[in-house]
Amino acid sequence: MPIGIFDYGVGGLTVMKEIMEQLPDEHILYLGDTARVPYGVRSPGTVLNYSLENARFLVSKGIKFLVVACNTSSAVSLGMLKEKFSLPVIGVVGPGARAAVQMTKMKRVAVIGTETTINSGSYEKAIRSLDDSIQVTGVACPLFVPLIEEGWLDGEIVSLTAAKYLSSIRNDSADTLVLGCTHYPMIKHVIAATVRVPLIDSAVETAREVKAILEQGGMLRTGKGSALKKYFVTDAPGKFRDVGRKFLDHTIENITKISLGNT
Amino acid sequence: MPIGIFDYGVGGLTVMKEIMEQLPDEHILYLGDTARVPYGVRSPGTVLNYSLENARFLVSKGIKFLVVACNTSSAVSLGMLKEKFSLPVIGVVGPGARAAVQMTKMKRVAVIGTETTINSGSYEKAIRSLDDSIQVTGVACPLFVPLIEEGWLDGEIVSLTAAKYLSSIRNDSADTLVLGCTHYPMIKHVIAATVRVPLIDSAVETAREVKAILEQGGMLRTGKGSALKKYFVTDAPGKFRDVGRKFLDHTIENITKISLGNT
Repeated sequence: MPIGIFDYGVGGLTVMKEIMEQLPDEHILYLGDTARVPYGVRSPGTVLNYSLENARFLVSKGIKFLVVACNTSSAVSLGMLKEKFSLPVIGVVGPGARAAVQMTKMKRVAVIGTETTINSGSYEKAIRSLDDSIQVTGVACPLFVPLIEEGWLDGEIVSLTAAKYLSSIRNDSADTLVLGCTHYPMIKHVIAATVRVPLIDSAVETAREVKAILEQGGMLRTGKGSALKKYFVTDAPGKFRDVGRKFLDHTIENITKISLGNT
Repeated sequence: MPIGIFDYGVGGLTVMKEIMEQLPDEHILYLGDTARVPYGVRSPGTVLNYSLENARFLVSKGIKFLVVACNTSSAVSLGMLKEKFSLPVIGVVGPGARAAVQMTKMKRVAVIGTETTINSGSYEKAIRSLDDSIQVTGVACPLFVPLIEEGWLDGEIVSLTAAKYLSSIRNDSADTLVLGCTHYPMIKHVIAATVRVPLIDSAVETAREVKAILEQGGMLRTGKGSALKKYFVTDAPGKFRDVGRKFLDHTIENITKISLGNT
Protein backbone atom coordinates (compact mmCIF):
# COMPACT_ATOMS: atom_id res chain seq x y z
CA MET A 1 0.00 0.00 0.00
CA PRO A 2 1.20 3.53 -0.74
CA ILE A 3 2.09 6.37 1.59
CA GLY A 4 -0.49 9.17 1.41
CA ILE A 5 0.59 12.80 1.56
CA PHE A 6 -1.58 15.89 1.48
CA ASP A 7 -1.01 19.62 1.39
CA TYR A 8 -3.12 22.51 0.12
CA GLY A 9 -0.94 22.92 -2.92
CA VAL A 10 2.57 22.32 -4.17
CA GLY A 11 4.42 23.04 -0.89
CA GLY A 12 4.09 19.49 0.41
CA LEU A 13 6.04 18.31 -2.63
CA THR A 14 9.22 19.40 -0.79
CA VAL A 15 8.29 16.77 1.82
CA MET A 16 7.49 14.21 -0.88
CA LYS A 17 10.87 14.94 -2.50
CA GLU A 18 12.68 14.09 0.74
CA ILE A 19 10.56 10.94 1.25
CA MET A 20 11.37 9.84 -2.32
CA GLU A 21 15.06 10.32 -1.61
CA GLN A 22 15.04 8.43 1.66
CA LEU A 23 12.48 5.78 0.62
CA PRO A 24 12.85 5.39 -3.16
CA ASP A 25 10.90 2.09 -3.31
CA GLU A 26 7.65 3.33 -1.77
CA HIS A 27 4.46 3.97 -3.72
CA ILE A 28 3.10 7.45 -2.97
CA LEU A 29 -0.28 9.17 -3.42
CA TYR A 30 -0.14 12.96 -3.20
CA LEU A 31 -3.21 15.15 -2.79
CA GLY A 32 -2.95 18.91 -3.39
CA ASP A 33 -6.14 20.72 -2.35
CA THR A 34 -5.47 23.43 -4.90
CA ALA A 35 -9.09 24.62 -5.11
CA ARG A 36 -8.85 25.84 -1.53
CA VAL A 37 -5.26 27.10 -1.47
CA PRO A 38 -3.88 28.73 0.68
CA TYR A 39 -4.79 27.36 4.11
CA GLY A 40 -2.44 29.86 5.77
CA VAL A 41 -5.00 32.66 5.66
CA ARG A 42 -8.00 30.59 6.79
CA SER A 43 -9.49 30.19 10.24
CA PRO A 44 -8.62 27.04 12.24
CA GLY A 45 -12.16 25.61 11.94
CA THR A 46 -12.04 25.86 8.16
CA VAL A 47 -8.59 24.26 8.00
CA LEU A 48 -9.84 21.43 10.23
CA ASN A 49 -12.75 20.67 7.87
CA TYR A 50 -10.58 20.73 4.77
CA SER A 51 -7.93 18.51 6.38
CA LEU A 52 -10.52 15.93 7.35
CA GLU A 53 -11.87 15.81 3.79
CA ASN A 54 -8.36 15.42 2.40
CA ALA A 55 -7.50 12.61 4.82
CA ARG A 56 -10.78 10.79 4.12
CA PHE A 57 -10.06 10.87 0.40
CA LEU A 58 -6.57 9.40 0.75
CA VAL A 59 -7.69 6.76 3.27
CA SER A 60 -10.47 5.73 0.85
CA LYS A 61 -7.77 5.06 -1.77
CA GLY A 62 -6.02 2.59 0.58
CA ILE A 63 -2.88 4.00 2.19
CA LYS A 64 -0.71 2.60 4.97
CA PHE A 65 0.60 5.89 6.36
CA LEU A 66 -0.66 9.48 6.26
CA VAL A 67 1.70 12.45 6.05
CA VAL A 68 0.18 15.89 6.66
CA ALA A 69 2.75 17.81 4.63
CA CYS A 70 1.38 21.23 5.52
CA ASN A 71 2.34 23.17 8.63
CA THR A 72 -0.96 25.00 8.89
CA SER A 73 -2.90 21.77 8.73
CA SER A 74 -0.49 19.91 11.04
CA ALA A 75 -0.76 22.72 13.56
CA VAL A 76 -4.52 22.69 13.59
CA SER A 77 -5.72 19.19 12.73
CA LEU A 78 -3.15 16.52 13.58
CA GLY A 79 -4.72 15.48 16.89
CA MET A 80 -8.13 15.11 15.30
CA LEU A 81 -6.77 13.11 12.35
CA LYS A 82 -4.92 10.73 14.70
CA GLU A 83 -8.16 10.12 16.58
CA LYS A 84 -10.30 9.57 13.50
CA PHE A 85 -8.10 7.18 11.53
CA SER A 86 -6.52 3.89 12.56
CA LEU A 87 -3.26 4.27 10.64
CA PRO A 88 -0.03 6.10 11.49
CA VAL A 89 -0.41 9.84 10.95
CA ILE A 90 2.51 12.25 11.04
CA GLY A 91 2.65 16.00 10.56
CA VAL A 92 5.57 18.31 9.86
CA VAL A 93 5.45 20.24 13.14
CA GLY A 94 6.55 17.39 15.45
CA PRO A 95 9.65 16.38 13.47
CA GLY A 96 10.70 20.04 13.07
CA ALA A 97 10.20 20.69 16.79
CA ARG A 98 12.18 17.60 17.84
CA ALA A 99 15.08 18.56 15.58
CA ALA A 100 15.08 22.12 16.95
CA VAL A 101 15.24 20.89 20.55
CA GLN A 102 18.27 18.75 19.68
CA MET A 103 20.04 21.56 17.86
CA THR A 104 19.65 24.62 20.08
CA LYS A 105 22.43 25.22 22.59
CA MET A 106 21.38 28.69 23.75
CA LYS A 107 17.81 27.40 24.23
CA ARG A 108 16.51 30.06 21.87
CA VAL A 109 14.63 28.90 18.79
CA ALA A 110 12.97 31.04 16.11
CA VAL A 111 10.17 29.71 13.89
CA ILE A 112 8.92 31.24 10.65
CA GLY A 113 5.67 30.30 8.89
CA THR A 114 2.29 31.48 7.65
CA GLU A 115 0.09 33.64 9.83
CA THR A 116 -2.14 30.73 10.83
CA THR A 117 0.79 28.50 11.77
CA ILE A 118 2.50 31.20 13.83
CA ASN A 119 -0.72 32.38 15.48
CA SER A 120 -1.57 28.79 16.42
CA GLY A 121 1.61 28.67 18.52
CA SER A 122 1.95 25.02 17.53
CA TYR A 123 5.74 24.97 17.24
CA GLU A 124 6.10 26.76 20.54
CA LYS A 125 3.82 24.19 22.22
CA ALA A 126 5.59 21.25 20.58
CA ILE A 127 9.06 22.54 21.47
CA ARG A 128 8.19 23.51 25.02
CA SER A 129 6.46 20.19 25.67
CA LEU A 130 9.90 18.64 25.06
CA ASP A 131 11.93 21.25 26.97
CA ASP A 132 10.12 24.10 28.67
CA SER A 133 13.31 26.04 29.28
CA ILE A 134 13.52 26.82 25.56
CA GLN A 135 12.41 30.28 24.47
CA VAL A 136 10.53 30.23 21.14
CA THR A 137 9.96 33.28 18.90
CA GLY A 138 7.53 33.04 16.00
CA VAL A 139 7.53 35.32 12.95
CA ALA A 140 4.81 35.20 10.28
CA CYS A 141 6.09 35.76 6.72
CA PRO A 142 2.91 35.89 4.58
CA LEU A 143 4.66 37.04 1.40
CA PHE A 144 7.11 34.15 1.15
CA VAL A 145 4.55 31.72 -0.29
CA PRO A 146 3.34 33.99 -3.12
CA LEU A 147 6.94 35.01 -3.90
CA ILE A 148 8.00 31.37 -4.13
CA GLU A 149 4.97 30.42 -6.21
CA GLU A 150 5.82 33.30 -8.56
CA GLY A 151 9.25 31.70 -8.95
CA TRP A 152 11.16 34.74 -7.67
CA LEU A 153 13.64 32.64 -5.71
CA ASP A 154 16.63 34.94 -6.14
CA GLY A 155 17.30 38.62 -6.45
CA GLU A 156 16.62 41.84 -4.67
CA ILE A 157 12.89 41.49 -4.02
CA VAL A 158 13.10 38.19 -2.16
CA SER A 159 16.23 39.33 -0.29
CA LEU A 160 14.60 42.59 0.84
CA THR A 161 11.46 40.72 1.86
CA ALA A 162 13.53 38.25 3.88
CA ALA A 163 15.45 41.10 5.50
CA LYS A 164 12.21 42.85 6.44
CA TYR A 165 10.62 39.78 8.00
CA LEU A 166 13.72 38.36 9.63
CA SER A 167 15.38 41.47 11.09
CA SER A 168 14.01 40.67 14.56
CA ILE A 169 15.53 37.20 14.39
CA ARG A 170 18.93 38.58 13.46
CA ASN A 171 18.91 40.80 16.51
CA ASP A 172 17.24 38.28 18.75
CA SER A 173 20.22 35.93 18.96
CA ALA A 174 18.31 32.72 18.37
CA ASP A 175 20.72 29.93 17.40
CA THR A 176 18.23 27.75 15.53
CA LEU A 177 15.63 28.71 12.91
CA VAL A 178 12.80 26.33 11.97
CA LEU A 179 11.37 26.65 8.45
CA GLY A 180 7.78 26.20 9.55
CA CYS A 181 6.29 26.12 6.06
CA THR A 182 6.88 23.51 3.37
CA HIS A 183 7.40 26.21 0.73
CA TYR A 184 10.36 27.76 2.50
CA PRO A 185 13.04 25.19 1.57
CA MET A 186 12.81 26.72 -1.93
CA ILE A 187 14.40 29.95 -0.58
CA LYS A 188 16.60 28.32 2.07
CA HIS A 189 19.66 29.97 0.51
CA VAL A 190 18.13 33.46 0.85
CA ILE A 191 16.99 32.85 4.43
CA ALA A 192 20.37 31.40 5.42
CA ALA A 193 22.17 34.42 3.96
CA THR A 194 19.87 36.78 5.89
CA VAL A 195 19.79 35.26 9.37
CA ARG A 196 23.12 33.39 9.58
CA VAL A 197 21.82 30.83 12.09
CA PRO A 198 21.45 27.09 11.40
CA LEU A 199 18.15 26.15 9.75
CA ILE A 200 15.88 23.21 10.46
CA ASP A 201 14.10 21.95 7.34
CA SER A 202 10.91 20.22 8.51
CA ALA A 203 10.64 18.37 5.19
CA VAL A 204 13.95 16.57 5.79
CA GLU A 205 13.10 15.81 9.43
CA THR A 206 9.65 14.50 8.52
CA ALA A 207 11.01 12.16 5.84
CA ARG A 208 13.50 10.84 8.39
CA GLU A 209 10.71 10.03 10.87
CA VAL A 210 8.52 8.43 8.20
CA LYS A 211 11.39 6.12 7.33
CA ALA A 212 12.07 5.25 10.98
CA ILE A 213 8.41 4.45 11.71
CA LEU A 214 8.01 2.29 8.59
CA GLU A 215 11.22 0.42 9.43
CA GLN A 216 10.28 -0.12 13.06
CA GLY A 217 6.78 -1.29 12.14
CA GLY A 218 8.00 -3.65 9.43
CA MET A 219 5.91 -1.65 6.97
CA LEU A 220 8.47 -0.97 4.24
CA ARG A 221 7.43 -2.02 0.74
CA THR A 222 8.97 -5.33 -0.28
CA GLY A 223 7.29 -5.78 -3.70
CA LYS A 224 9.21 -5.69 -6.96
CA GLY A 225 8.77 -3.20 -9.77
CA SER A 226 9.14 0.52 -9.82
CA ALA A 227 7.50 2.68 -7.18
CA LEU A 228 4.32 4.39 -8.42
CA LYS A 229 3.49 8.04 -7.83
CA LYS A 230 -0.02 9.39 -8.30
CA TYR A 231 -1.22 12.94 -7.84
CA PHE A 232 -4.70 14.28 -7.11
CA VAL A 233 -5.66 17.95 -7.18
CA THR A 234 -8.94 19.74 -6.58
CA ASP A 235 -8.27 22.45 -9.20
CA ALA A 236 -5.92 23.55 -11.99
CA PRO A 237 -3.89 20.36 -12.70
CA GLY A 238 -1.81 22.08 -15.42
CA LYS A 239 -0.55 24.74 -13.05
CA PHE A 240 0.16 22.07 -10.40
CA ARG A 241 2.28 20.14 -12.90
CA ASP A 242 4.24 23.21 -14.00
CA VAL A 243 4.86 24.83 -10.60
CA GLY A 244 5.11 21.50 -8.76
CA ARG A 245 7.97 20.24 -10.88
CA LYS A 246 10.26 22.82 -9.29
CA PHE A 247 9.22 21.80 -5.78
CA LEU A 248 9.58 18.08 -6.42
CA ASP A 249 12.67 18.51 -8.60
CA HIS A 250 11.12 15.81 -10.79
CA THR A 251 8.52 15.66 -13.56
CA ILE A 252 4.92 15.13 -12.46
CA GLU A 253 2.65 12.72 -14.35
CA ASN A 254 -0.56 10.87 -13.43
CA ILE A 255 -2.47 13.91 -12.19
CA THR A 256 -6.21 13.44 -11.60
CA LYS A 257 -8.59 16.30 -10.83
CA ILE A 258 -11.06 15.37 -8.09
CA SER A 259 -13.82 17.12 -6.15
CA LEU A 260 -13.89 17.50 -2.39
CA GLY A 261 -16.70 19.27 -0.56
CA ASN A 262 -17.91 21.85 -3.06
CA THR A 263 -14.59 22.51 -4.80
CA MET B 1 -33.80 47.81 -1.16
CA PRO B 2 -30.03 47.79 -0.88
CA ILE B 3 -27.34 47.47 -3.53
CA GLY B 4 -25.54 44.12 -3.25
CA ILE B 5 -21.81 43.88 -3.84
CA PHE B 6 -19.61 40.81 -3.76
CA ASP B 7 -15.93 40.06 -4.05
CA TYR B 8 -13.77 37.22 -2.76
CA GLY B 9 -12.29 39.39 -0.06
CA VAL B 10 -11.55 42.99 0.78
CA GLY B 11 -10.66 44.18 -2.75
CA GLY B 12 -14.25 44.99 -3.69
CA LEU B 13 -14.34 47.48 -0.84
CA THR B 14 -12.49 49.91 -3.14
CA VAL B 15 -15.57 49.70 -5.39
CA MET B 16 -17.91 50.09 -2.40
CA LYS B 17 -15.93 53.14 -1.28
CA GLU B 18 -16.52 54.84 -4.64
CA ILE B 19 -20.21 53.87 -4.62
CA MET B 20 -20.57 55.31 -1.10
CA GLU B 21 -18.98 58.55 -2.29
CA GLN B 22 -21.16 58.88 -5.37
CA LEU B 23 -24.35 57.48 -3.80
CA PRO B 24 -24.14 58.29 -0.08
CA ASP B 25 -27.84 57.60 0.59
CA GLU B 26 -27.93 54.00 -0.63
CA HIS B 27 -28.16 50.96 1.64
CA ILE B 28 -25.44 48.45 0.77
CA LEU B 29 -24.90 44.74 1.50
CA TYR B 30 -21.33 43.56 0.95
CA LEU B 31 -20.33 39.91 0.74
CA GLY B 32 -16.65 38.92 0.99
CA ASP B 33 -16.14 35.23 0.19
CA THR B 34 -13.06 35.15 2.41
CA ALA B 35 -13.11 31.38 2.96
CA ARG B 36 -12.33 30.86 -0.71
CA VAL B 37 -9.98 33.79 -1.32
CA PRO B 38 -8.25 34.34 -3.73
CA TYR B 39 -10.24 33.67 -6.91
CA GLY B 40 -7.33 34.86 -9.07
CA VAL B 41 -5.53 31.51 -8.86
CA ARG B 42 -8.61 29.32 -9.42
CA SER B 43 -9.89 27.76 -12.62
CA PRO B 44 -12.80 29.46 -14.44
CA GLY B 45 -15.25 26.67 -13.57
CA THR B 46 -14.54 27.03 -9.87
CA VAL B 47 -14.87 30.82 -10.02
CA LEU B 48 -18.19 30.42 -11.83
CA ASN B 49 -19.58 28.16 -9.08
CA TYR B 50 -18.44 30.44 -6.28
CA SER B 51 -19.84 33.54 -8.02
CA LEU B 52 -23.22 31.89 -8.44
CA GLU B 53 -23.36 31.00 -4.74
CA ASN B 54 -22.39 34.54 -3.77
CA ALA B 55 -25.02 36.09 -6.04
CA ARG B 56 -27.72 33.70 -4.79
CA PHE B 57 -26.97 34.67 -1.21
CA LEU B 58 -27.25 38.41 -1.87
CA VAL B 59 -30.38 38.02 -4.00
CA SER B 60 -31.97 35.99 -1.19
CA LYS B 61 -31.40 38.98 1.12
CA GLY B 62 -33.41 41.23 -1.21
CA ILE B 63 -31.26 43.57 -3.31
CA LYS B 64 -32.19 45.84 -6.20
CA PHE B 65 -28.84 45.82 -8.00
CA LEU B 66 -25.90 43.42 -8.05
CA VAL B 67 -22.30 44.63 -8.38
CA VAL B 68 -19.66 41.99 -9.08
CA ALA B 69 -16.77 43.92 -7.56
CA CYS B 70 -14.13 41.41 -8.58
CA ASN B 71 -12.37 41.37 -11.92
CA THR B 72 -11.78 37.63 -11.92
CA SER B 73 -15.42 36.93 -11.23
CA SER B 74 -16.64 39.60 -13.67
CA ALA B 75 -14.41 38.19 -16.36
CA VAL B 76 -15.70 34.66 -15.93
CA SER B 77 -19.25 34.81 -14.62
CA LEU B 78 -21.00 38.06 -15.57
CA GLY B 79 -22.88 36.64 -18.56
CA MET B 80 -24.16 33.71 -16.53
CA LEU B 81 -25.25 35.92 -13.62
CA LYS B 82 -27.15 38.26 -15.97
CA GLU B 83 -29.01 35.27 -17.37
CA LYS B 84 -29.85 33.72 -14.00
CA PHE B 85 -31.13 36.78 -12.15
CA SER B 86 -33.80 39.27 -13.10
CA LEU B 87 -32.16 42.37 -11.64
CA PRO B 88 -29.49 44.70 -13.02
CA VAL B 89 -26.03 43.12 -12.75
CA ILE B 90 -22.83 45.02 -13.38
CA GLY B 91 -19.22 43.92 -13.26
CA VAL B 92 -16.02 45.91 -13.12
CA VAL B 93 -14.65 44.85 -16.51
CA GLY B 94 -17.23 46.65 -18.68
CA PRO B 95 -16.90 50.08 -17.03
CA GLY B 96 -13.09 49.85 -17.08
CA ALA B 97 -13.09 48.83 -20.74
CA ARG B 98 -15.47 51.63 -21.77
CA ALA B 99 -13.34 54.24 -19.98
CA ALA B 100 -10.18 52.90 -21.64
CA VAL B 101 -11.72 53.15 -25.11
CA GLN B 102 -12.63 56.78 -24.44
CA MET B 103 -9.18 57.66 -23.08
CA THR B 104 -6.72 56.06 -25.50
CA LYS B 105 -5.55 58.22 -28.37
CA MET B 106 -2.79 55.96 -29.67
CA LYS B 107 -5.23 53.02 -29.62
CA ARG B 108 -2.90 51.09 -27.35
CA VAL B 109 -4.20 50.01 -23.95
CA ALA B 110 -2.42 47.97 -21.29
CA VAL B 111 -4.31 46.00 -18.63
CA ILE B 112 -2.90 44.60 -15.41
CA GLY B 113 -4.63 42.04 -13.18
CA THR B 114 -4.48 38.58 -11.63
CA GLU B 115 -3.45 35.58 -13.71
CA THR B 116 -7.04 34.40 -14.15
CA THR B 117 -8.28 37.82 -15.26
CA ILE B 118 -5.44 38.32 -17.73
CA ASN B 119 -5.60 34.76 -19.08
CA SER B 120 -9.34 35.11 -19.58
CA GLY B 121 -8.67 37.94 -22.05
CA SER B 122 -11.86 39.58 -20.81
CA TYR B 123 -10.62 43.17 -20.98
CA GLU B 124 -9.23 42.60 -24.44
CA LYS B 125 -12.58 41.18 -25.61
CA ALA B 126 -14.56 43.99 -23.96
CA ILE B 127 -12.32 46.72 -25.38
CA ARG B 128 -12.12 45.26 -28.87
CA SER B 129 -15.87 44.72 -29.02
CA LEU B 130 -16.13 48.51 -28.72
CA ASP B 131 -13.25 49.35 -31.06
CA ASP B 132 -11.39 46.53 -32.75
CA SER B 133 -8.59 48.79 -33.92
CA ILE B 134 -7.32 49.08 -30.35
CA GLN B 135 -4.33 46.95 -29.41
CA VAL B 136 -4.58 45.51 -25.88
CA THR B 137 -1.65 44.14 -23.87
CA GLY B 138 -2.32 42.20 -20.66
CA VAL B 139 0.19 41.71 -17.86
CA ALA B 140 -0.49 39.44 -14.88
CA CYS B 141 0.87 40.76 -11.56
CA PRO B 142 0.21 37.94 -9.06
CA LEU B 143 2.24 39.46 -6.22
CA PHE B 144 0.39 42.77 -6.04
CA VAL B 145 -2.56 41.33 -4.10
CA PRO B 146 -0.50 39.66 -1.34
CA LEU B 147 1.74 42.74 -1.10
CA ILE B 148 -1.28 45.00 -0.69
CA GLU B 149 -2.91 42.67 1.83
CA GLU B 150 0.35 42.68 3.80
CA GLY B 151 0.05 46.47 3.90
CA TRP B 152 3.34 47.11 2.12
CA LEU B 153 1.95 49.98 0.06
CA ASP B 154 5.14 52.04 -0.07
CA GLY B 155 8.85 51.42 -0.16
CA GLU B 156 11.43 49.53 -2.13
CA ILE B 157 9.80 46.11 -2.28
CA VAL B 158 6.53 47.27 -3.85
CA SER B 159 8.42 49.65 -6.19
CA LEU B 160 10.79 46.92 -7.39
CA THR B 161 7.88 44.53 -7.84
CA ALA B 162 5.99 47.12 -9.89
CA ALA B 163 9.11 47.81 -11.98
CA LYS B 164 9.56 44.10 -12.64
CA TYR B 165 5.96 43.53 -13.74
CA LEU B 166 5.47 46.77 -15.61
CA SER B 167 8.74 47.13 -17.53
CA SER B 168 7.12 45.82 -20.71
CA ILE B 169 4.39 48.44 -20.44
CA ARG B 170 6.93 51.23 -20.07
CA ASN B 171 8.62 50.18 -23.27
CA ASP B 172 5.47 49.30 -25.07
CA SER B 173 4.20 52.85 -25.39
CA ALA B 174 0.62 52.22 -24.32
CA ASP B 175 -1.09 55.50 -23.45
CA THR B 176 -3.71 54.06 -21.08
CA LEU B 177 -3.34 51.54 -18.26
CA VAL B 178 -6.38 49.79 -16.77
CA LEU B 179 -6.12 48.66 -13.15
CA GLY B 180 -7.85 45.35 -13.75
CA CYS B 181 -8.01 44.28 -10.11
CA THR B 182 -9.92 45.95 -7.30
CA HIS B 183 -6.91 45.77 -4.98
CA TYR B 184 -4.70 47.85 -7.22
CA PRO B 185 -6.11 51.32 -6.44
CA MET B 186 -4.31 50.88 -3.08
CA ILE B 187 -0.95 51.16 -4.88
CA LYS B 188 -2.08 53.54 -7.62
CA HIS B 189 0.68 55.99 -6.63
CA VAL B 190 3.40 53.32 -7.06
CA ILE B 191 2.01 52.16 -10.39
CA ALA B 192 1.65 55.71 -11.68
CA ALA B 193 5.25 56.52 -10.72
CA THR B 194 6.45 53.39 -12.54
CA VAL B 195 4.57 53.54 -15.84
CA ARG B 196 3.90 57.26 -16.31
CA VAL B 197 0.76 56.69 -18.39
CA PRO B 198 -2.76 57.67 -17.35
CA LEU B 199 -4.53 55.05 -15.23
CA ILE B 200 -8.11 53.85 -15.40
CA ASP B 201 -9.49 52.91 -11.99
CA SER B 202 -12.28 50.40 -12.60
CA ALA B 203 -13.72 51.06 -9.13
CA VAL B 204 -14.38 54.72 -9.98
CA GLU B 205 -15.81 53.87 -13.41
CA THR B 206 -18.06 51.15 -11.98
CA ALA B 207 -19.50 53.46 -9.30
CA ARG B 208 -20.22 56.03 -12.02
CA GLU B 209 -22.18 53.46 -14.05
CA VAL B 210 -24.08 52.19 -11.00
CA LYS B 211 -25.19 55.74 -10.31
CA ALA B 212 -26.21 56.35 -13.93
CA ILE B 213 -28.26 53.14 -14.14
CA LEU B 214 -30.05 53.78 -10.83
CA GLU B 215 -30.85 57.33 -11.92
CA GLN B 216 -32.10 56.32 -15.34
CA GLY B 217 -34.21 53.51 -13.89
CA GLY B 218 -35.71 55.71 -11.16
CA MET B 219 -34.23 53.28 -8.64
CA LEU B 220 -32.43 55.69 -6.32
CA ARG B 221 -33.34 55.38 -2.67
CA THR B 222 -35.81 58.04 -1.57
CA GLY B 223 -36.36 56.92 2.05
CA LYS B 224 -35.25 58.99 5.02
CA GLY B 225 -32.76 57.97 7.66
CA SER B 226 -29.12 57.07 7.37
CA ALA B 227 -27.96 54.55 4.79
CA LEU B 228 -27.25 51.11 6.27
CA LYS B 229 -24.18 49.06 5.48
CA LYS B 230 -24.00 45.35 6.27
CA TYR B 231 -21.14 42.98 5.67
CA PHE B 232 -21.11 39.20 5.27
CA VAL B 233 -17.98 37.06 5.15
CA THR B 234 -17.45 33.31 4.82
CA ASP B 235 -14.37 33.25 7.09
CA ALA B 236 -12.25 35.32 9.48
CA PRO B 237 -14.47 38.38 10.19
CA GLY B 238 -11.83 39.96 12.47
CA LYS B 239 -9.23 40.05 9.75
CA PHE B 240 -11.82 41.38 7.28
CA ARG B 241 -12.62 44.24 9.64
CA ASP B 242 -8.95 45.12 10.22
CA VAL B 243 -7.67 44.84 6.65
CA GLY B 244 -10.91 46.06 5.08
CA ARG B 245 -10.89 49.35 6.94
CA LYS B 246 -7.92 50.49 4.86
CA PHE B 247 -9.64 49.54 1.59
CA LEU B 248 -12.94 51.19 2.50
CA ASP B 249 -11.26 54.13 4.23
CA HIS B 250 -14.03 53.80 6.81
CA THR B 251 -14.68 51.65 9.89
CA ILE B 252 -16.51 48.37 9.29
CA GLU B 253 -19.27 47.24 11.64
CA ASN B 254 -22.17 44.79 11.30
CA ILE B 255 -20.11 41.85 10.05
CA THR B 256 -21.84 38.45 9.97
CA LYS B 257 -20.06 35.20 9.27
CA ILE B 258 -22.07 32.95 6.94
CA SER B 259 -21.57 29.60 5.22
CA LEU B 260 -21.70 29.07 1.46
CA GLY B 261 -21.16 25.67 -0.13
CA ASN B 262 -18.86 23.87 2.26
CA THR B 263 -16.96 26.89 3.56
